Amino acid sequence: MPRTLTKEDLCIHQVCVWKQSSFADSLDSFARHGITKTAIWRPMVEDIGVNQAKKILDNSSVSAISMCPLVLLDPDKLLDWASREQEHIRYLEDAAELRVKTAVVITGGLPPKSNDLAGRRQAVLEELARLIPVAEESGLKLALEPLHPMVCGFRSVVSTLGEANDILDALDRDDVMGIAVDSYALWWDPKLKEEILRAGPRICNFHVSDWLPETRDVRVDRGMPGDGLIDNPLIRSWMEQAGYKGPVEVEILSALDWWLKPADTVVKTICERIEFL
Amino acid sequence: MPRTLTKEDLCIHQVCVWKQSSFADSLDSFARHGITKTAIWRPMVEDIGVNQAKKILDNSSVSAISMCPLVLLDPDKLLDWASREQEHIRYLEDAAELRVKTAVVITGGLPPKSNDLAGRRQAVLEELARLIPVAEESGLKLALEPLHPMVCGFRSVVSTLGEANDILDALDRDDVMGIAVDSYALWWDPKLKEEILRAGPRICNFHVSDWLPETRDVRVDRGMPGDGLIDNPLIRSWMEQAGYKGPVEVEILSALDWWLKPADTVVKTICERIEFL
Repeated sequence: MPRTLTKEDLCIHQVCVWKQSSFADSLDSFARHGITKTAIWRPMVEDIGVNQAKKILDNSSVSAISMCPLVLLDPDKLLDWASREQEHIRYLEDAAELRVKTAVVITGGLPPKSNDLAGRRQAVLEELARLIPVAEESGLKLALEPLHPMVCGFRSVVSTLGEANDILDALDRDDVMGIAVDSYALWWDPKLKEEILRAGPRICNFHVSDWLPETRDVRVDRGMPGDGLIDNPLIRSWMEQAGYKGPVEVEILSALDWWLKPADTVVKTICERIEFL
Repeated sequence: MPRTLTKEDLCIHQVCVWKQSSFADSLDSFARHGITKTAIWRPMVEDIGVNQAKKILDNSSVSAISMCPLVLLDPDKLLDWASREQEHIRYLEDAAELRVKTAVVITGGLPPKSNDLAGRRQAVLEELARLIPVAEESGLKLALEPLHPMVCGFRSVVSTLGEANDILDALDRDDVMGIAVDSYALWWDPKLKEEILRAGPRICNFHVSDWLPETRDVRVDRGMPGDGLIDNPLIRSWMEQAGYKGPVEVEILSALDWWLKPADTVVKTICERIEFL
């Protein structure tokens, strides 16, 4: 059995209320419900600029533990590495400015018209190696986040925790490289427990939501914990076995349901569902 | 490089034209385009009864190599094992009557209100063990088909070829148990080549379609080979390395596109896409 959670253990990701809140409103809503930690959703920073975001964070009782996502290769943008690298450096500068500990990294997809999955996986390794010194200089950890295989090829070519562990083995820079574990992305994997224990201290972040059996969208139809098929407390018990002591980050991307409700309803519901985390 | 395919190597699954054809029409359409092999879609047999299906097959130049799917546990039906077993036995009798070599088996999902994935995976092993003597008596192979993780929990609790290989190891009845490899279900897996080589002679069937980057449905939005991200010829080269000599079965479930077109258009297009198989 995992330990009993209190609100102190909770972190609510800004993306849970992305569509109905401004950067400031989201923090206010978390604070009203006694939530003290958030994870920053990069597009919400871009809406107002990093200076404004910093000012709002400095005046809030809510602090930010991470920012996501840094997307190594966004197929919709198709920039060469030099241009992408500039963008990633700006991302890391902003993350440092907002004083988060980790920048969550997803690989993104395949370049347009390519089906060379092995080639892109190799390139990811090289691109991460080039970002490590930049993150190191900013005092940030890069938390590689594997995503569900259904977004393989357009959002993440790294689908399992085993692959993420292999990449960290190859890079051999665990002082800078970490891993973000997301229950929605990984719950189906029969090797999940084994790979969580292998990851151990590499794990920087723990994202949770639920898998709706009638999923209507491959990316933005995540469920509220308790509404789906994921045994989050079981996965959390493995995280605790692996030594993870950080907060539980609720991260629900829900275009058809929770993004359509008032932010306070979303936050209140998350707090009521604490037994399912 | 895999060998060059001809129409003789092709098998077109009835499900490709399920919504626009009767059982008989589908075979006629395959025959008109010089296709000699099909895989039977169980619901199309149920529409007309097995006797009628057998008569149509006997009078066709197209022969059937397999029937699918036998679903171990359909969450929409919620039958106890005794009732399900009767249904599975009827399925195997029908498959034998239609003289196919393999019955493709998928595990189905979790029982309603359950999130005990490990428990259901264990039950699958026991249920397969109970069906083995029945299949043996009918002279059929049971081809276990892992499905994509996005249908884990409602359609298949076995998501990877590695899991299927582990199950076959545990059952230790490779004389009756086999495996169906589906490129759409498995293309993302970094261990796919390794597990195909491990499966070797276990592989009874090879299903192909394509992964559309803008997938609109988690089950019935498969793409025509050449329209998506899967390098099918690469996967086929691994199949050939593993000793697979059977046909390439095109299996496209496409509610929003190909099921809406005339059957002859679908079959003609598949034949034109042979280089992408």
